[in-house]
Amino acid sequence: MKPFVAVTALLAGWAAALPAAAQFQKPEDAIHYRQSVMTVMATHFGRVNAMATGKMPFDAAAVQANADIVAMMSKLPFAAFGDGTQKGGRTKANAEIWSQPDKFKAAAQKMQDEVGKLNAAAKTGSIDQVKAAAGAVGQSCKACHDDFRDD
Amino acid sequence: MKPFVAVTALLAGWAAALPAAAQFQKPEDAIHYRQSVMTVMATHFGRVNAMATGKMPFDAAAVQANADIVAMMSKLPFAAFGDGTQKGGRTKANAEIWSQPDKFKAAAQKMQDEVGKLNAAAKTGSIDQVKAAAGAVGQSCKACHDDFRDD
Repeated sequence: MKPFVAVTALLAGWAAALPAAAQFQKPEDAIHYRQSVMTVMATHFGRVNAMATGKMPFDAAAVQANADIVAMMSKLPFAAFGDGTQKGGRTKANAEIWSQPDKFKAAAQKMQDEVGKLNAAAKTGSIDQVKAAAGAVGQSCKACHDDFRDD
Repeated sequence: MKPFVAVTALLAGWAAALPAAAQFQKPEDAIHYRQSVMTVMATHFGRVNAMATGKMPFDAAAVQANADIVAMMSKLPFAAFGDGTQKGGRTKANAEIWSQPDKFKAAAQKMQDEVGKLNAAAKTGSIDQVKAAAGAVGQSCKACHDDFRDD
């Protein structure tokens, strides 16, 4: 079994297992958690992107390691946008997350799909494939932030 | 190849690949990142622990999924305690992290080792094994916080 297959299996496991377990004591805990996940995801995606765009030397092993972290993180934040977590802490989450849940869910899924492609591209070790996939991930981040995150 | 082996291989990959890529623009970025990693790790370890101690119903798949996240997170924070990140943002990091680096490194390694055992226990699906391993992880968290985190 290649690492990519194993990772995919793990992602499927998380997706199945996490919503039921995704419980927070207080709205502020959910807000703090989802922001933390986003910080970790953005840090490691930033490193992939820096290597894809030549701002850092391309290191295929580092790209894979960072892409694996991005893939795991991409599954986590959305269980922390439950009803009741609109307020309770400093948050830029827009009310449309809760008024247009299908649209939000589709945007989350789009990002996760693009992250999955980035993970596959990272396994090839091809800078061109990583660059193309990272660009698509970046667009999916931006699209969701434009619609659902306040400035 | 069983999932546990794959995860172990991935962990080895991260450990090898991350330090070189672990660069932060500003000390506050490193501080914010390591705190975010700790929040994600604590959230998911908390779920394992709740299931191990009967505060939540034991769900073997959820234990595994959460333990996988803890395992990945356990590798990440320590690259963000570089020299120069003692200040620059709100932090509880104690000065001994930098004055006693070998002791800090050993405490980090102890936690990672215990998290590795928790991951192995999670794969067995045995609540008794998970409970014992989770207890040891909790002790390693506390020991490091007692020595290296200000109240």
